Order: sequence, then C-alpha cells, then structure tokens
Amino acid sequence: MSPLSQVFNTSLAEPVPQGYEDISNIVPPYSAYSPKGHPEGDLVYVNYGRTEDFIQLKREMDIDVTGKIVIVRYGKIFRGNKVKNAMLAGAKGVIMFSDPADYWATGVQPYPDGWNLPGGGVQRGNVLNLNGAGDPLTPGYPAKEYTFRLNLEDGVGLPKIPVHPIGFHDAIHLLKNMGGQIPPNNWKGALNVSYKTGPGFTEDFQSHKVRINIHSNNQVTRIYNVIGKIRGALEPDRYVILGGHRDAWVFGGIDPMSGAAVVHETVRSAGKLLRKGWRPRRTVIFASWDAEEFGLLGSTEWAEDNARLLQERAVAYINADSAIEGMYTLRVDCTPSMHTLVYDITKQITSPEEGEEGVSLYESWHKRDNWTNDRDAPRISKLGSGSDFEAYFIRLGIAAGRARYTKNKKTERYSSYPVYHSVYETFEIVEKFYDPTFKRLRAVAQVRGGLIFLLADSQVLPLDAKEYADSLRKYAQSIAHLAQTNTEQMETYRVSFEPLFSAVENFTAAARDFHERLQTLNGKDPLQVRIVNDQLMYLERAFIDPLGLPGRPFYRHVIFAPSSHNKYAGESFPGIYDALFDIENSTDPEKAWQEVKRQISIAAFTVNAAAVTLTPPA
Amino acid sequence: MSPLSQVFNTSLAEPVPQGYEDISNIVPPYSAYSPKGHPEGDLVYVNYGRTEDFIQLKREMDIDVTGKIVIVRYGKIFRGNKVKNAMLAGAKGVIMFSDPADYWATGVQPYPDGWNLPGGGVQRGNVLNLNGAGDPLTPGYPAKEYTFRLNLEDGVGLPKIPVHPIGFHDAIHLLKNMGGQIPPNNWKGALNVSYKTGPGFTEDFQSHKVRINIHSNNQVTRIYNVIGKIRGALEPDRYVILGGHRDAWVFGGIDPMSGAAVVHETVRSAGKLLRKGWRPRRTVIFASWDAEEFGLLGSTEWAEDNARLLQERAVAYINADSAIEGMYTLRVDCTPSMHTLVYDITKQITSPEEGEEGVSLYESWHKRDNWTNDRDAPRISKLGSGSDFEAYFIRLGIAAGRARYTKNKKTERYSSYPVYHSVYETFEIVEKFYDPTFKRLRAVAQVRGGLIFLLADSQVLPLDAKEYADSLRKYAQSIAHLAQTNTEQMETYRVSFEPLFSAVENFTAAARDFHERLQTLNGKDPLQVRIVNDQLMYLERAFIDPLGLPGRPFYRHVIFAPSSHNKYAGESFPGIYDALFDIENSTDPEKAWQEVKRQISIAAFTVNAAAVTLTPPA
Repeated sequence: MSPLSQVFNTSLAEPVPQGYEDISNIVPPYSAYSPKGHPEGDLVYVNYGRTEDFIQLKREMDIDVTGKIVIVRYGKIFRGNKVKNAMLAGAKGVIMFSDPADYWATGVQPYPDGWNLPGGGVQRGNVLNLNGAGDPLTPGYPAKEYTFRLNLEDGVGLPKIPVHPIGFHDAIHLLKNMGGQIPPNNWKGALNVSYKTGPGFTEDFQSHKVRINIHSNNQVTRIYNVIGKIRGALEPDRYVILGGHRDAWVFGGIDPMSGAAVVHETVRSAGKLLRKGWRPRRTVIFASWDAEEFGLLGSTEWAEDNARLLQERAVAYINADSAIEGMYTLRVDCTPSMHTLVYDITKQITSPEEGEEGVSLYESWHKRDNWTNDRDAPRISKLGSGSDFEAYFIRLGIAAGRARYTKNKKTERYSSYPVYHSVYETFEIVEKFYDPTFKRLRAVAQVRGGLIFLLADSQVLPLDAKEYADSLRKYAQSIAHLAQTNTEQMETYRVSFEPLFSAVENFTAAARDFHERLQTLNGKDPLQVRIVNDQLMYLERAFIDPLGLPGRPFYRHVIFAPSSHNKYAGESFPGIYDALFDIENSTDPEKAWQEVKRQISIAAFTVNAAAVTLTPPA
Repeated sequence: MSPLSQVFNTSLAEPVPQGYEDISNIVPPYSAYSPKGHPEGDLVYVNYGRTEDFIQLKREMDIDVTGKIVIVRYGKIFRGNKVKNAMLAGAKGVIMFSDPADYWATGVQPYPDGWNLPGGGVQRGNVLNLNGAGDPLTPGYPAKEYTFRLNLEDGVGLPKIPVHPIGFHDAIHLLKNMGGQIPPNNWKGALNVSYKTGPGFTEDFQSHKVRINIHSNNQVTRIYNVIGKIRGALEPDRYVILGGHRDAWVFGGIDPMSGAAVVHETVRSAGKLLRKGWRPRRTVIFASWDAEEFGLLGSTEWAEDNARLLQERAVAYINADSAIEGMYTLRVDCTPSMHTLVYDITKQITSPEEGEEGVSLYESWHKRDNWTNDRDAPRISKLGSGSDFEAYFIRLGIAAGRARYTKNKKTERYSSYPVYHSVYETFEIVEKFYDPTFKRLRAVAQVRGGLIFLLADSQVLPLDAKEYADSLRKYAQSIAHLAQTNTEQMETYRVSFEPLFSAVENFTAAARDFHERLQTLNGKDPLQVRIVNDQLMYLERAFIDPLGLPGRPFYRHVIFAPSSHNKYAGESFPGIYDALFDIENSTDPEKAWQEVKRQISIAAFTVNAAAVTLTPPA
C-alpha cells in the first residue's frame, strides 16, 4: 500500500488536557505487549470481541475472520480476552476503540467540562492472557537476576498478533465506510450509523484495506515494589497485607493514585498510633506495587518470591487500587468469610454523601444497593481479577477483599469510568467531579484501613465461616441450575450434583459448630486462641487445589477464578462452569460430560476437605 | 503355538514351606497390574533392565527389542522401572527372575534350612510407575465413593504389556537355550553358564519362542486404613505420625509384619503411659495402611484426603515398614533435619548385639557403618521411595524418616533380602534366623518409638536446620561435580551453579542464626515457642514446589525425589539430575542445557526461599 492511496491515518496521541501541555513524556496510546508488525487486510467488526460475539459471527452470520483485521469495541470484558478470542478465530490484527455507548455517561460533558471521554481519548492497557502467571518469562517463579527466563516466543499469554487502541473520533472513520453484513441490533453502539460487519468496506471503498503498524519493543526491565512493615507485638508471624499499585498509564488521577493515596493515609494513621505506643497483635505489611498495568507483575512476583511465608502466615490481603470509579455508593468485592466484618466496619463509618449526616456508610450503601430479595443487606460481590489481589487470593488462597466508591450500576450503563486509562485521568477530574470534598475517598480509606486494623489487632480473627457456607450453597445451586438446561444429557451420562450439595451441607454443619465452639473459647489461653485463629486463617487456603484449574495452573482456587471469558469477572465453581460452557455444541459429548463429572468430583472433595479443617483438630 | 510344540512351562506356584501346606488361599506369584494378554516372541536378555542396560543393548550391541519378549533379572532397581524401560524400548512382554547372584547370601542354605531363596521361590510385586499418584484412577484426589475415576486405559503408571515373575529353577530353562550375542561380563549372574542376549534361542531351538499368558483382572476394590490418635494436650493441631502397612503378599513375616508389630508395640507403650496420666504435647497419629504393595495406595489416598490438615499441621512422619532385612546393624534413611535427633536417640538405646552389653546402639552402629572419611558418625542415607512415607515426604514436604535393621552392605551383595515377597517370608524365618531373641526388633521399635515420642513431646521441636544446610552443601557439590564432566558445553551454554552455591550459603547462615536465637528463646511464652516450632515444622514444606518435577506432578520436593531410573533410590536435586542425565547424547544440546539452567534456577530459588523461612518472621 503506497502512501498515495492512504485515505485515513489514526492519531498517534491524545489531545493533552489544559495545564499539562508542557509534559513531554506522555506515553502514547498503545496495547502493551503487542508484537511488532504491520498486518494489512479487510476489517471485520465483532462487537465487544467476546466469546459469544465470535460464536455469533461464525454460527449466525457465517463470517470467518481468518486473515482479517478485527475491530472491536472496548467494554464488557477484559481487553486481553478480546485479543485472545481474535487470535483463536484466526485474525491477524486487532483494533480496539471506545464507543460512546460504553464510555459516555448521559448528560455529562467530555473532560475538562465534565468527566466523559473526549473523542480523542484512548484507553491504554495490556493485552496479555497471563492467567495469573506474573512475568510472562518466569511463570511460577520470581524474576530474580539469576532466574531462568523463557524465550519471548515461549512467554506466557503474550499476544501473537498486532493490537492497537483508538478513540471514537478515529474509529468512526474506519467504521463509516464498512461494507459487509449488518450485524444484529445488540451489536450497535453509539456510532451505529454505519456499523456493519464482515469483510471489506462499502463498494466505493472496496479496494481499501486497513493496515496496523506496530513498532514497539518488548524488553526485560527492572520494577520496584516498596514494602513497609509494622512488626506484630504478639504474633509477628501473622501477616495482614494492604497492597496497591503505584504505576500509572499517564497521570493516574484515578487509577491508581486515588487508591495509592489511601495506602499512604493508612500508613500515616498507623504511624500516629505507633507513636502513641500502639502495636498491632499481628504484623501489618504495606505494599506499593509496581507494573500492575503490565500484568499484575509487581504483586505477583512478590507473591511468588514469598509464597512459602504467605502460605504459612498470611491472614488476609486487602487491595488498594482505584478508590473511586463513580459518585453513588460503596462497592465491595471480597471473600465470603469477610462479609460480616465489612458490614460491621461500615456501620461504624459515616456516610460521605451530602445530606446524610449521622447516617452510617452501611445505611447509605444499603439504601442504594440492596443485595437481593432474599437478603436484606448491602450487596457484596465475588472477587474477579484485574488487580493485585489476584496472586494472593486465586493462587495462594489468602482471604482477600477490595472496596471502592462506584456508580449506580442500574442507571449508569457505561463501562468502568469514561476516562479510564486515558490522558484525562488527572487529579483535577477527581477534585472537580468525583469527590470535591474528598469525603468519598476518606470513606473508602476508612473501610480499607478498618479492615486492616481489625484483621491485625482482633484477638480472634474476624472471619466468618458461616458466610462462606451460605455463599457455597448459592454457588452450588447456581451451577446446578446452569447444568439443568441439559437435563436429558445429564441423565444419559449420569451426571449428579448430589456429592457437591452433600459437601456443602457438611461444610455448613462444620462452620456452624466451629462458631458455636468459639463462644466458649478460653481467651486467656494463647495456644487455644492461636489454634482457632489458624483454622480461620487456613480456611481460605483449604479451597486451593495444587493441581490448578484445567490449563490454568496458577488459578488454583476451586471456588473462585477469573472467568475464562473475562478476566475482570469472578466465576464461582469455575472448573465446573468451564466444563459446562457451550457443552450443547461439543463435538464429543461423552468426553465433555465426563469432564463435568470430574469437575463436580473435585469441587465436592474440596468443599468436604475444607469442612474438615473447621472440625476440632484432633 | 499348539500344545504339542510346548517344550517347557514355568511353574504356577511356589512350593509351600512346611507347616503351611493346609493354607489354601496363597496368592500365586504374579506381577500386580500386568494387563491381560499372551504375547509370543523371541526372548532377549537385558540384565537388570536398567536404563543403562537398555542403552548398552542398543548402543553397544545394536540389539532392538521391538516386538520381542524381554527377560531381566530382579535387583538393583524397582521392578516397575524395569517394565517401563522395556515398554519404552518397544518390548511386548517382560519376564523377571531372581538370579542366585542377587538373591543368595554366601554360605547360607535355602529356606527352611537357612534364609536364602529356594529355586522355586518367586518375588511378587507391582509393576506400576505411579510417580506418587496413588490410586492410578484418581491421581491427586482420594478415591472416595463419589470420586471421578479415569478409564483403565488412562490410569496413571499402568503397564501396557504383560509382565510375569519366575524363580531361578524356571529361569534356567529359558536361559540355557538362548542364542544371540554374548552379553558383557558384568551382565552375568550366577546362572551365567548360558547367558546370552539378542533374539531367539540357539540353532537347535530356532523355531521356539516364548509365550506369556496373563489372565489376571484389574478391578476397583475397597481398602481399609486403620487410624488411631492420641490427642495432644497443648497443641492438638500438631501431628506426629507413625505409619506402616498391614497388607502382605503372602505371610509377610518380614514385610510388613516385622514393622507392623513395631506399630502395635508403640501403641501398647503409649497406652501404658496414657494410663499413668501422660499425654503428649502434640497429637500422635498411628496409621496401619492397606494396599502398600499395590502402589502405596492406603497411605497415599489418606494423604490426599487429608492434604490440607497435613500441610498445615504435620510435624513429622515416621515410617514403619519391615523392621529387619539383615542381621548386622541399624539402617536409617531420613530428612537431614532429623539427623541429630536420630543420633541422640540411638545413644540412649542399648545395642541388641550379643557381646555388646552396655554398648549403645549408636556405638554399635557407628563401629559397623561409619558415614564417610570426613564425618565421624554412623551413616544416615537419603530417603528414596518404595514405602508409605512417599506421599508425606515427597509430595507434602513433611519431615520423614525410617529405621530398620540391615545387612552388611560391604560384604553382603545380594538385593534386599533373599526371600523378599516370596512364600518363604514366614514368622519362622525371623524367629530362627533374623532375630531369635527379638532384640534387634526391639531396638528398631525403640528408635521408631523414640522418634515419635520426642517429636510429639519436646517443647521445642528436635529438628536441626544446620544439618539440612550441611546436606544441601554436599548435594550441591555433588551435582555440580556431575555436570563438570561437560565443562566445554557448560561454557558454551553459560551454565553456572553459582546461584545454587550462593543459595546454600544463605541457607547456612539463616540456619546458624536461627539456632543461635533458639538459645535465648523464652520457653515460658507459649506464642514465642509456637512461632519457632512453626518455623521448624514448615522448613521441610519450604522445599516443596507446587509445580512438581518435570512430568512428575506428585513429586514436588526440590531436594529429594525417587530416582527416575529407580524408584527405590533417592536422588538429590532430582530436577537438575534428570536434566543432566545422558546429556552427552542429547539430540538438541541447546535445549537440553537450557533445561539444566532452568532446573538450577528453580533449585537456587527454592533453597533461598527456604532460608528466608528461618529468618525472624517480621
């Protein structure tokens, strides 16, 4: 393709916001870890690039993307999954764009007049599929000087095709001339005037193709984690960890600085207490991670380096990424055993919302986001991934949680927050729009800090096995319900969820008895206290299967894993879920259902084994 | 092959010893887990069937066993490895026999007049290559009612070709007429008059072949472990385990009853103490395992079922298989951290040997088997496998040890003990020959029981990290020395053992400092005591790599594993060792040396990580 025939080139940079014009080293929008290359070809639009989008494209529209360039909109799922799906479908390049349908809040101006994404704004981000491996060249081991490194071509989760992100001002130029088939209505975003899919452009532009030019280099470089510790007074070998990342794509006004500031404030508060003579019962570790944006590298490498200590000694990990992504209410994702603690803490914190003086954060949150019809409490969700708790929770089985301020999910349908990973994530966007009084951030800091404080200083660990039992029951019902859509096949292959339900009953009884015995604990006997605390600490560990999930050796939690189709989302009983996925279209149903049975067996065993850890130790 | 042409049939049973003629259900000699089948073909003699024997056969004698029946003598390595080697070489059947060169002690009569193996005696045994998987159909998980089971063809480590064992009275008939090439001198056993190798028989018998007829069935069946517990008075959640198997091939006079009796006696002694009001500080678990002879199934399935509890709570595992295999002195294999304890205990036990009244077992043992020139102490060896400690030590990383009475290895060159796994393992052979006064068995019981008692009841765990440091240094030197035979290639591929030596130095310093700090431990502070004990308990665990060794996911100990070429033998730094094995003949030296580097990196990291577990916890 000679320069003469070039019709349109996308932008190399975002328009820099006012006040930042002199900053010279702004990293231009790119997809981290994209290989070099300049693939050229017809463009095919595949909606969000989800598994179901590619399935629909193939099955319903009969469109093959082999050898084509795929264009997908950002949102719904982690971008790495989009790239993986495109690779599996045979595409030779991926363009990702932010559609206003996904990155505009209704009635809000683009930055700097509001907090919406300007048309020139672009979402940066890595496009890895690490599945928890950390440094792609040193899976399973910390990347020390002496550590053996894989060749780049063998690296874990590295994309094999060029990938590039653009804003919607650019995207519209690529989309408006597309020919091909008209996609289903639910594929239409805000730029839907000319959304089409299938190869090529409209007749006028038939001879035109797109080309992606990627010149970036992947290289091994040093990263820096900053770790601080307060030695526990009584149990220095029990660790409560507050960790969050420090690296940002550009200014990081929200991601991660709104969260990193919380770590700083917590450290400052702990320092004040220390000067007053206080020392926590257990050791508190503060961690400022590097290279989260490059695949959770800082946190994962540190977890790999300290795996033995953490397995034996870590009580809990609290994550401190972005503290705010909306202006509506609290959002908490955590392990079920932390539910009760989160409720207790939020009852002691004041609502940051105007006009809610004297109202607790719990009440304010509850009013805005009730869990379900059958549970009258604020909603708490499963942990997914996409932030630094991953290695601690999913690989090592350490009780974990995260809290932030969020939008109203029912009315605000945009993805994450509009300026996410763009140059417009400034301090000013937080100060002007998200939290002018900084009361919301303070509330989040109080939740995170409160968790750390109580986990580190309570004589008996404030973890609740009964809540785990309740969650397990819900997850078991939910996965059994999912399977029921294939009743006939389940009968044919004699698939039963009975062992899993029976295991959940065993766990429920063990949890109930455990907490009953706790009532009569002799708090003056340090060994008796330590023994029950060890049972509580190791409860999460009990859900770890050293063999890992199929094809994902570093996702080892049998109850929770990032979805195989969206790293951001948490899936419960992920082994069973993945075995059931699209099973109707399996080419070998016998084998597919055998795998379902195997996964039910593993889940039932794991829940039973976890139950036994709660029974009297001898 | 019609019956008319049959020249010779091997025996279906062993001649039953006097006094046992009425016993009707004696299991005939067979190779457990051999598939059904009746392969027919030329016979090739391959010495002990070791890796090096097959290499020699191919490289030096240019003999291909593809499609042939292989005959090998028992001894030197685990029989399962022989079968694996034969399968890999393409054989379609295996015959194993006991050669008097390997199963006769000089100047000893065959049973019942002495303890040598009669010519009709045959060694039974399984021919699996489980690599620690336990039940071949449920690798990684306990075989419960609800557990998913693999199909037989997918089972772990099951031989794919028929295998059968014979005695030397039968073997000589097969061997005496063999044609083919004359094997090297070191391949000649006691039946060496006509040892030849290569296909076929001598000219006179050219048209003759051998046929193996195996009619056995593999089936899933129930096994029974018997578990007893004494609840620890102060730390019920710390477990010290004495375990040994109960199942025997026939009468089991030596294997396992000489050991099972020790478990019984220890239980009885503990019962006496309990009645006097004693309770151990920690919980003692007594285990009588089933199905050891079928692949360490009882112990491995129990370890799988209780993996979480054991990982968190097990202090040590002491094995109680056969207590006697010779009449010379003590033999101990254990983790390095138990060396000091073993020495301390044996100094308090009386020698069982006649004429050694007032002499300690330590002195008696030391006199007979000094370690090396540079260490003036009785020899203690590495743990290999082939008995029930495997899952506890190699998979879970629990400090483990075993002790028995043994032969003089320098003068008695036979393999294990002559009547091993034959019908001649009677109570009488122990009573008449091995230990007429039962003092040797008592001494072994005192060692095993003493270990259990002190591990369960000492305030500070009697484990010695400094001994581990010393052993690590020896192993590192030894593996580096082995690699040095390829100095040129090591330079070419820039292979360095420096990170490993440096890690060993770190470990040595950490161990020294740890034991120095122990001197100032405040024994009145229960939490301080618990914290150092946890460091000692988890030291062995620190050597576990959750990713396991290459191709052997259930062998996870980075320092010790059963040799890939002989399950019975322990290999130190097995990952590096296997990567170096036969590397001179590698078809892709670049790749082979990369794997050596990777394994050195893993070993160095693991030793460094273990060192950190010994430093102050915060």
